[in-house]
Amino acid sequence: MPKTQEQVELAQNAAGRMVPAVVNGHAQVPYLGVGKYGPNGRKGAPPVRSSRDYRKDGDKRVVDLETALRECGLRDGMVISNHHHLRDGDRVALMALEAAARIGVKDLTWFPSASFPSQKGAIELMERGVIHHIEGSMNGPLGDYCTQGKMRGMGVLRSHGGRWQAVQDGEVHIDIAAIAAPAADPFGNADGSHGRSACGSLGFALADSMYADHVIVVTDNLVPFPCVPWQIQGNNVDFVVEVGSIGDPAKIVSGTTQITRSPDRIRIAEFVARFLRESGIMRNGFSFQAGAGGIALAFVDYLRRMMKEDGVKARFVRGGSTKYLVDLLQEGLTDYILDGQTFDLDGVRSIASDPRHVATSPFTSYNYHGKGNFASMVDAVVLGATEVDVNFNANVVTHSDGRLLHGIGGWQNCLEAGCTILALPSFRDRIPVIVDEVTTLTGPGELIDVVATERGIAINPQRQDLLDAMKGSNLPIRPIREIKAEVEKICGGKPARPKMGDRPVAVVKWVDGTVLDTVWQVS
Amino acid sequence: MPKTQEQVELAQNAAGRMVPAVVNGHAQVPYLGVGKYGPNGRKGAPPVRSSRDYRKDGDKRVVDLETALRECGLRDGMVISNHHHLRDGDRVALMALEAAARIGVKDLTWFPSASFPSQKGAIELMERGVIHHIEGSMNGPLGDYCTQGKMRGMGVLRSHGGRWQAVQDGEVHIDIAAIAAPAADPFGNADGSHGRSACGSLGFALADSMYADHVIVVTDNLVPFPCVPWQIQGNNVDFVVEVGSIGDPAKIVSGTTQITRSPDRIRIAEFVARFLRESGIMRNGFSFQAGAGGIALAFVDYLRRMMKEDGVKARFVRGGSTKYLVDLLQEGLTDYILDGQTFDLDGVRSIASDPRHVATSPFTSYNYHGKGNFASMVDAVVLGATEVDVNFNANVVTHSDGRLLHGIGGWQNCLEAGCTILALPSFRDRIPVIVDEVTTLTGPGELIDVVATERGIAINPQRQDLLDAMKGSNLPIRPIREIKAEVEKICGGKPARPKMGDRPVAVVKWVDGTVLDTVWQVS
Repeated sequence: MPKTQEQVELAQNAAGRMVPAVVNGHAQVPYLGVGKYGPNGRKGAPPVRSSRDYRKDGDKRVVDLETALRECGLRDGMVISNHHHLRDGDRVALMALEAAARIGVKDLTWFPSASFPSQKGAIELMERGVIHHIEGSMNGPLGDYCTQGKMRGMGVLRSHGGRWQAVQDGEVHIDIAAIAAPAADPFGNADGSHGRSACGSLGFALADSMYADHVIVVTDNLVPFPCVPWQIQGNNVDFVVEVGSIGDPAKIVSGTTQITRSPDRIRIAEFVARFLRESGIMRNGFSFQAGAGGIALAFVDYLRRMMKEDGVKARFVRGGSTKYLVDLLQEGLTDYILDGQTFDLDGVRSIASDPRHVATSPFTSYNYHGKGNFASMVDAVVLGATEVDVNFNANVVTHSDGRLLHGIGGWQNCLEAGCTILALPSFRDRIPVIVDEVTTLTGPGELIDVVATERGIAINPQRQDLLDAMKGSNLPIRPIREIKAEVEKICGGKPARPKMGDRPVAVVKWVDGTVLDTVWQVS
Repeated sequence: MPKTQEQVELAQNAAGRMVPAVVNGHAQVPYLGVGKYGPNGRKGAPPVRSSRDYRKDGDKRVVDLETALRECGLRDGMVISNHHHLRDGDRVALMALEAAARIGVKDLTWFPSASFPSQKGAIELMERGVIHHIEGSMNGPLGDYCTQGKMRGMGVLRSHGGRWQAVQDGEVHIDIAAIAAPAADPFGNADGSHGRSACGSLGFALADSMYADHVIVVTDNLVPFPCVPWQIQGNNVDFVVEVGSIGDPAKIVSGTTQITRSPDRIRIAEFVARFLRESGIMRNGFSFQAGAGGIALAFVDYLRRMMKEDGVKARFVRGGSTKYLVDLLQEGLTDYILDGQTFDLDGVRSIASDPRHVATSPFTSYNYHGKGNFASMVDAVVLGATEVDVNFNANVVTHSDGRLLHGIGGWQNCLEAGCTILALPSFRDRIPVIVDEVTTLTGPGELIDVVATERGIAINPQRQDLLDAMKGSNLPIRPIREIKAEVEKICGGKPARPKMGDRPVAVVKWVDGTVLDTVWQVS
């Protein structure tokens, strides 16, 4: 097998990518192709506990996080997890990691469902040896730190569903989960939809609460038992810690989410909405998912108008929820919102009060190692990407310069939808988005059906049904290579290839736990 | 070790009872005392599945139960589970067992959460060798069959919480769960609170859905995806079967639950309500649980009036819910109903529509091998019993003639409440209820605080706090032996001792999985 300078064995996977055979001491299965890997064995499971070891009155409060971590038996090398429902406003993850630092432990694996720029204090903890490495999405400075080769261990990037899969399958064993909770009772029942730090669903923390050896709930809004509704069950919780503030409300949810004002992006949004209408996907009882980005919001707004015009009603829409999805629900244009995370105040208010706005978890929505999941039942999904290649393979984690700046989120999981549409500007900062080969493969082209840009819509040649359905459409349906050539003319050529070394700094997992690609150190 | 005629090794447990060392081939831990047994190891877990093996459109329907069972790989000796939320109206359990019989398998273990008189067809299946034995509550004829010594294997009686514990801990491995669902979608999301066979919560089936190797949902009310709310998650479900009717609505829930008309029983109910008031347990923010029996309902009615008079509001009440609990919720006398099962139509309507009426599961409420549970947070619980002895030990499964006629339900789990009250007529059919020693020990006396009869209220001498609180009360607080003597005078002596053989036919598990007592064959 070829090896890198540091003697990491590499293997070529089914996508032709070179990936490490061992990551942070754990042997890996290289990606085998979509639907090719079959798991074995039984799920992982936490220790059996006994009620005799917990107070009969259900009061699990301890004075602070440091005490809770000590009581959990924190020691060197443990895996500490957090969720990211508070997004860039979260204070709890760093609070827990800094408490661990005060206790004096070293070499922790930090396992957040995602990390954000405001958590860049984790860099100092890595420099001091408290954190060995991060497994989880690294947005911004933490990802940059990783691609600079400064992290001692390898980053492991997983989708939301892939994170559930890894925990459920026992690939990642969480020693201690510290769960930020906008509302909780002294028993540890917790919910995200109430309180001054409300964030909507707490679904990303659910696997942690079920599978971790020890679970700490951290709240700034303690309510008397029972906290209703509860999404995290106190029966899985060891300790409850009250703190002054779990996060900055202004950065937890947006006051209002903003539709793009860019004419090009509005054009893309309109193309996508028209594509759904003209292809027949927008029909009574259909379903769709779109994110909270500017294009996605504009798309929802267009689609809403078309649904009204045509008298079409959706059975469900999948969130990340925003005001735009809530409007659909309130106008009777969908029966349900099935919501994985909540992006703005309208979304939070709706999930807190409307029983048709249902909190989901990565288990229900995305886990590939379940008996199916919701994602494959969605008729159409509208996603972004940093790059897409002429074979429809796409990248969402690195930029064309090789820097790791984004997480996967639910993106990989959503590719299972009936029609997967990437809605993208054809270039950004004069760098073409359609490339010969993506810097980091995050999604196999066979699962990506449509690439919609302001210059035209490319349909994957494997989807003859969609090509047929769009015959005679006024929409600019074009081969992807034609759009690419046009963009390269505008931008003055293909994007420069990044100067990547041969040292792997992170891996991208596929939804089944196999290794899809490698992120390399950028020199 | 002493042995029975059939060479079953017996051991004396901490309650002084002789219990089998091995039950149905599995080694047992004899009861060690309350809070004395500490579990080891990790929870059981089902196989890891992959979405690649399930249809992308989420449709898991197959034509009938026989097909579903074949697809699940049904074979001799497997464990088949059902829940009992449809109570005596259930049709699904026998439907599944009879389908298994048609397939031709033998020696099944039937593992219902409880069985009922209408399921006495299972006796024929035992006679024919299809069912080897039943593990689960056996109400009426099935219990009688067991105590006659006719079942090939030993019965295993568990509380609701103990059933969860056994499944969770891997003591019982469910091969195939067949879950009756009043509402379900083709993906297998299922709920109990809607449809013509609505039964309220489906909590008893939750462990089965999570831990069984194979899960079949059986419904007479298929709704388009998503079935909202879902208590059973389709992500755990393999097959969905539509049938004409899952049960007889008239026997699933009562139209209305009836308060007792017996003057003695009304007197007991009033005593208990006054006891809660005078002892100070009935105070703002308190909680209680009572069943759906005639005394319990009358008690709730008395307590409601006292709460109104005193301006007292409960934080939560625990169901089994009935009209009487729903009235409390609607009159603002409690913030929440935390409901394990739903007994009448008012209860079903309430749980289906009022977010303050919350479905719970045996995991949240009762599982002793969790990080605490709700039961120990309840201030007072009012329960029944078939017998209670002078040391407050109680029996709920057998009658004084030794016949096994009842299940444990949540009874054992409820003993963890702050104040456990048995509300009992002092004799039934001229047989005294207070005895020297209970026929079958189901609950240790140290957990039973009060025995309330129409002739007086006995407080467990271990509860000096309650004795102190009731000093000067007008209620007839009396030593239990004094009440017993009076009753024996009325009835003409102690109850006749049953003629029990030395062959164990069933065991009673304690909440921690240890063996509390043995049910013996009645000759």
